[in-house]
Amino acid sequence: MSKLSHIDDKGQARMVDVSDKAVTDRRAVAEGFIRMQPETLALVEAGEAKKGDVIGAARIAGIMAAKKTHELIPLCHPLAITKATIEFEISKSPPGIHVLSEVKVAGPTGVEMEALTGVSVACLTLYDMLKAADKTMTIEDIRLVEKTGGKSGTFKAPARPKGR
Amino acid sequence: MSKLSHIDDKGQARMVDVSDKAVTDRRAVAEGFIRMQPETLALVEAGEAKKGDVIGAARIAGIMAAKKTHELIPLCHPLAITKATIEFEISKSPPGIHVLSEVKVAGPTGVEMEALTGVSVACLTLYDMLKAADKTMTIEDIRLVEKTGGKSGTFKAPARPKGR
Amino acid sequence: MSKLSHIDDKGQARMVDVSDKAVTDRRAVAEGFIRMQPETLALVEAGEAKKGDVIGAARIAGIMAAKKTHELIPLCHPLAITKATIEFEISKSPPGIHVLSEVKVAGPTGVEMEALTGVSVACLTLYDMLKAADKTMTIEDIRLVEKTGGKSGTFKAPARPKGR
Amino acid sequence: MSKLSHIDDKGQARMVDVSDKAVTDRRAVAEGFIRMQPETLALVEAGEAKKGDVIGAARIAGIMAAKKTHELIPLCHPLAITKATIEFEISKSPPGIHVLSEVKVAGPTGVEMEALTGVSVACLTLYDMLKAADKTMTIEDIRLVEKTGGKSGTFKAPARPKGR
Amino acid sequence: MSKLSHIDDKGQARMVDVSDKAVTDRRAVAEGFIRMQPETLALVEAGEAKKGDVIGAARIAGIMAAKKTHELIPLCHPLAITKATIEFEISKSPPGIHVLSEVKVAGPTGVEMEALTGVSVACLTLYDMLKAADKTMTIEDIRLVEKTGGKSGTFKAPARPKGR
Amino acid sequence: MSKLSHIDDKGQARMVDVSDKAVTDRRAVAEGFIRMQPETLALVEAGEAKKGDVIGAARIAGIMAAKKTHELIPLCHPLAITKATIEFEISKSPPGIHVLSEVKVAGPTGVEMEALTGVSVACLTLYDMLKAADKTMTIEDIRLVEKTGGKSGTFKAPARPKGR
Repeated sequence: MSKLSHIDDKGQARMVDVSDKAVTDRRAVAEGFIRMQPETLALVEAGEAKKGDVIGAARIAGIMAAKKTHELIPLCHPLAITKATIEFEISKSPPGIHVLSEVKVAGPTGVEMEALTGVSVACLTLYDMLKAADKTMTIEDIRLVEKTGGKSGTFKAPARPKGR
Repeated sequence: MSKLSHIDDKGQARMVDVSDKAVTDRRAVAEGFIRMQPETLALVEAGEAKKGDVIGAARIAGIMAAKKTHELIPLCHPLAITKATIEFEISKSPPGIHVLSEVKVAGPTGVEMEALTGVSVACLTLYDMLKAADKTMTIEDIRLVEKTGGKSGTFKAPARPKGR
Repeated sequence: MSKLSHIDDKGQARMVDVSDKAVTDRRAVAEGFIRMQPETLALVEAGEAKKGDVIGAARIAGIMAAKKTHELIPLCHPLAITKATIEFEISKSPPGIHVLSEVKVAGPTGVEMEALTGVSVACLTLYDMLKAADKTMTIEDIRLVEKTGGKSGTFKAPARPKGR
Repeated sequence: MSKLSHIDDKGQARMVDVSDKAVTDRRAVAEGFIRMQPETLALVEAGEAKKGDVIGAARIAGIMAAKKTHELIPLCHPLAITKATIEFEISKSPPGIHVLSEVKVAGPTGVEMEALTGVSVACLTLYDMLKAADKTMTIEDIRLVEKTGGKSGTFKAPARPKGR
Repeated sequence: MSKLSHIDDKGQARMVDVSDKAVTDRRAVAEGFIRMQPETLALVEAGEAKKGDVIGAARIAGIMAAKKTHELIPLCHPLAITKATIEFEISKSPPGIHVLSEVKVAGPTGVEMEALTGVSVACLTLYDMLKAADKTMTIEDIRLVEKTGGKSGTFKAPARPKGR
Repeated sequence: MSKLSHIDDKGQARMVDVSDKAVTDRRAVAEGFIRMQPETLALVEAGEAKKGDVIGAARIAGIMAAKKTHELIPLCHPLAITKATIEFEISKSPPGIHVLSEVKVAGPTGVEMEALTGVSVACLTLYDMLKAADKTMTIEDIRLVEKTGGKSGTFKAPARPKGR
């Protein structure tokens, strides 16, 4: 069981002791996609043109959620993140919105969960803002794209699993 | 733009006024899937046998997150939910864990976002617990399965988009 | 000391017992003003034209803060508010932004504090978004404009104290 | 638009990247005023004499809010503040209470928002504690008094705008 | 296992479904004791005489914690409590402070946990305020004193277990 | 009054200024006990054998609460803790569960309150999980066992006050 740092030898959950880990600059990028009907996407695009707050609200929600990660994920360490951004890219085919989050910290542990949480909550907020028009939206392919810093070094995700 | 209840005529975000909506019993079910390497899944199953807390921690995190939904999703109403459950089902093919959440409330608005948030945070917690072994996991196909109650009535999702 | 419901006969803080108060529809409107240099205001207006998120971020922050009121104000009751809006109006003379919040609930106690908190945090967010350009901004004249519902009935503020 | 650090070139909100900024000692002082009827102020003073908790509750609320700033203001960085105080000074003319907050941190970014948030929530709490007696109170002239530390150096507010 | 409502037939944690339970008036009273050196207690009493905020801060903290119970205790339902008080009684023998909390709600489930959480956090705050003088304080005998309302009816604790 | 660092010369609560204190490695251990009927304890033990989540939920709740300490205890500094564990030991005589928490940080102030809060909330969660079977449980003898680091150096609690 030693492969799972969050589980001790007795199979019990624990917050890993990072008190002896070096404080280094760390960065993580995560992504996700919310798939929707073309008609729903058209509403977002029309909104953009008219200063609609759909994308803006999802960005704020994602940034605030990245800061809240340690309150949501039981064994995450509290971290004073130094940067959090959420980017949105509209996709026509398949119809939907691609969400990308980047988080940075100078700390003893990484910010993968912060980036993944930022993406997840940004997608959930898009769902909430658009659900009056479309309840069949799906949130897909949330994953870690890249991380740098820390003892385990750099991780880069393999090429995208799907033809998007 | 009237199709998006969270956006007013000027394209501005708003929390919908539900003060005149009837308080009725409402229920929502959402699901999601975290795909992982077969070796990673084997670690979870071994843990289960040994009282490992991977699934248990994700369940608690998902339930607590469902209660926090209105703090995460900007325009969600605070709701005194009356039930929240998170269920996990191990899938061998494709390898991963299927997550199902059910939330209930007696209130003026539905609990779709609470169920979706519970699923999302449960999946994120599984990622966190297992990421020491596998950083390529993806969180997939988070969607609303069913909702009942309220003026818009019952919604049932179409059949699963993929061969899982 | 009986005039202060939040202080008991011994001069001690208490959360007022509202368990015997009727659940009625209640509504409160509050306002405030953030005064700034004309050059700072020009930046906001330019941003508006270019989809800048200054106003949008302050609106989301104000709505979310209204929901958090009972976590901030020690003796406020938790309330499941049914509506929260934040409106902004640009003022050329004096230069600044007028902020108006409306909150509704069906409950045993009013939402004055929720409306005032929404206005305050929206103003603070405007300050934060603009402080790189201007640290001399002041937040002014936060007050209750109107409340309806509840045993104490309707309150309407006297005419604006200043020549704005 | 480059004058607003919280808005990027596309007019989108962002949490500024402070990962390359030096960790220095930073301090900020903010102030505000809650104006009230002389009769309302007399209740506070009477309470003080009798160990009333009006001022005490507002102090605790302000300190706790300073710690919560990054949960309220969307683009504020989480900071491990090292000091937060809230001081109150009773003013007879105009009748009301002057609130002063000082916050310190050793960090890569300043604590202006923490001091301003502490003052705002202390004033809101005073309003809440006293509103049974007086709903016409106004919260006025919340502003940054002084900041030190960081690349932008020391800021001192110009002399008080009004004759208080 | 059916005796534990928070554990289902598979031994899994769940938030009990209270959607079919009647909304009734419910009330709970809990108590606890923080034992300290006589010299430490003397400091509290001296503070009381001089408007010291030790007791006042603990009262506010206990009330705020009662409101946060559902964020702390994983399977507690969110409840809009209608009253929360924390009372303190100084005990000379044994030396310490007795803490009593009363919480009320109109809801489908009881407020035992809210009263117990209020007492616990009030005691922890007393510890924090006094720990510079005495680190050997102990928090003792936190228990439910009484509950009324709900299907299980009235509960009254047996006589105090110790000679206090 | 100078013995109480959280109270200033005027008897007012304050968050101690730790900006000039050295950042050192600090560690605290706290303990507590929840006493219950032997029959209640038997339910926990039966659950353990069947992967019951009683202990697991209390562990997660205690760890999450340790991270939330500064939101609960008014004058605690926010700290980025680097470790938090909660251990449980079943006691047959007296019947109950002993709870032990260890917290670490590299910071300017200690983590005594974090360890004590983790123990308290873990005990409260055990109460909540088991209260359907037994409402007479008591939470007892929460105390600091040991602290190391910081200017005041090492503290070790005297031997256990009772015959457990």
